[in-house]
Amino acid sequence: MASKRVTSHDVARRAGVSRATVSLVLNRSDAVALSQETRERVRRAAAELGYRPNSAGRMLASGSTETIGLIISDAAILPIDGFIPQVLHGIGQVNRERGLHVLLEGRDSSSGPNPYEALVDTRRIDGLIVLNPRSDDEPLRALIESEFPVVLVGSIRHPKEHSVNFSSRAGISAATRLLVDLGHRRIGMVAFAAPGFVAADARVSAVRRALQTHGLTMPDDAVDYADFSAESGYHATKRLLQRQPDLTAIFAGNDTIAIGVMSAAAALGRRVPGDLSVIGFDDLPFSAWLNPALTTVHIDAVQQGALAAEMLIRLLAGKPVDARQVRLDCELVERKSCAGAP
Amino acid sequence: MASKRVTSHDVARRAGVSRATVSLVLNRSDAVALSQETRERVRRAAAELGYRPNSAGRMLASGSTETIGLIISDAAILPIDGFIPQVLHGIGQVNRERGLHVLLEGRDSSSGPNPYEALVDTRRIDGLIVLNPRSDDEPLRALIESEFPVVLVGSIRHPKEHSVNFSSRAGISAATRLLVDLGHRRIGMVAFAAPGFVAADARVSAVRRALQTHGLTMPDDAVDYADFSAESGYHATKRLLQRQPDLTAIFAGNDTIAIGVMSAAAALGRRVPGDLSVIGFDDLPFSAWLNPALTTVHIDAVQQGALAAEMLIRLLAGKPVDARQVRLDCELVERKSCAGAP
Repeated sequence: MASKRVTSHDVARRAGVSRATVSLVLNRSDAVALSQETRERVRRAAAELGYRPNSAGRMLASGSTETIGLIISDAAILPIDGFIPQVLHGIGQVNRERGLHVLLEGRDSSSGPNPYEALVDTRRIDGLIVLNPRSDDEPLRALIESEFPVVLVGSIRHPKEHSVNFSSRAGISAATRLLVDLGHRRIGMVAFAAPGFVAADARVSAVRRALQTHGLTMPDDAVDYADFSAESGYHATKRLLQRQPDLTAIFAGNDTIAIGVMSAAAALGRRVPGDLSVIGFDDLPFSAWLNPALTTVHIDAVQQGALAAEMLIRLLAGKPVDARQVRLDCELVERKSCAGAP
Repeated sequence: MASKRVTSHDVARRAGVSRATVSLVLNRSDAVALSQETRERVRRAAAELGYRPNSAGRMLASGSTETIGLIISDAAILPIDGFIPQVLHGIGQVNRERGLHVLLEGRDSSSGPNPYEALVDTRRIDGLIVLNPRSDDEPLRALIESEFPVVLVGSIRHPKEHSVNFSSRAGISAATRLLVDLGHRRIGMVAFAAPGFVAADARVSAVRRALQTHGLTMPDDAVDYADFSAESGYHATKRLLQRQPDLTAIFAGNDTIAIGVMSAAAALGRRVPGDLSVIGFDDLPFSAWLNPALTTVHIDAVQQGALAAEMLIRLLAGKPVDARQVRLDCELVERKSCAGAP
């Protein structure tokens, strides 16, 4: 294919004009006066040769790249946790349906070079989705303030941001009520990331608030911090249970962390759920099949990605969006990892 | 940013020329005769205004998109199994280091429209990586035969393909020897996909061959087929153990399927590993922390993606590759999910 492809050079030769003229005609440019006869000769030559203008030419002509950028903050999470792949899938589905391309950019960490400049300033993309944005990402704040079309999967709590995020309140309230009803009073948590990662912090705060409505507290000592992987969840749980051996239930920051929590419990000789109840967050596709089946707060990450893509497409089309900040609900899914307090 | 961006229109106005002339000058085109004085006036105006030509313009000028395409066959697997995210991560790392962009395209299934044409013919990309290619993908065969730069993560056994794949022989031999040494003679398998999916078929064949070296067979009745998810692994295992209740060990097609195998064993009242030994494949990051910790065949999917990206970059640079078809080794990782035959 590559070697046999018809180029604008072939069209120019057949039509007896320059390549620049071919480009001007096929891109419907009026920048240079050309006779109607020349325009028709070029179009006929292109049709006879089966020439398709390349996308760069069409981009210049239309001002549109037909491409959206997708930036994954902390790309190192991608192979470790099942959340990002689900969001990616939702974004990809919508873009495939609309014939848009997705340019994927990962960042190794939030301290790396500004990833937005190269994408935006060189106009490779029409708009941008940022996954797992961090509130300390100053270039992202500047991008939002510039009114460039950008939608966050997550939130940095910027008043002008467009974002699709979860309201974890309802799901965490229900999970907390379940534990309280089962007689648990000493409840701890293993956050999925260190303090400063917005989504992880939000879950710790939401659990604290939910416990307070039942007159319970979760002191700082009853919280430990993992680093996205099941392995880090295992080590954080061991630290937590050695510091607070009286805990009878643990909120895992997400389902991947819950795997590590249950593994640490087993290593310490505690049965789940008999000796320790565990609640996850995300409801990954495998979570119903863990041993024991994981009770968790379900969020629809595929839908979150799809809604973010649809919001961005509306922005690009100049259509109004119903709300700049969409918050999806989540709900408790009861399975087998919680039982009465020992 | 978007609203304040300097355009070629601004440069044209300042230099007193048409936009087409600005484009011709800044893209170093000689298609139209322009005076040296005009060329200098345009360059000065662009410099004074801080104008950066957009990427489409540079693509036209250089003939390079600085972008590789990545096609995920059967995109529906992305949110379900942890293998693809690891390969993606390896590809992304290498491309970030080299300053290349990755255009991500998913296919809903191999029966969908030809995804290569739109990417290749419109020259959005310089080269392509295809993840999980299927041997019945005729447009892919045509693309390989056209000598367009394409690297497969996996293989369709085309003599001209460039691919990075796994040789599962060593790992599966070791796994089979482990089971035989533990006294297992009736060994079954739950493939991760229906017959026809190359990588899944290859694992079934490799297990059969390894068993034959010990004088054992795995009849068709001792194999069942899942559909990528842990849930499908659960149902396939239930069918398998109802049909072949004497099995004492099961090869899971991959680690996600192994979660379902262990869940089905529990549902049928069989302890793992006391009543049933289970071996996975892939060694996903969470597999060491499952209950019980999964014995599995380790493959380095991040490395597989990175090597595919490096091979493609060599092809694009016109450099020789050591081998068109790279085969990585894999090895058994013994954990806690295998024990002596009951």
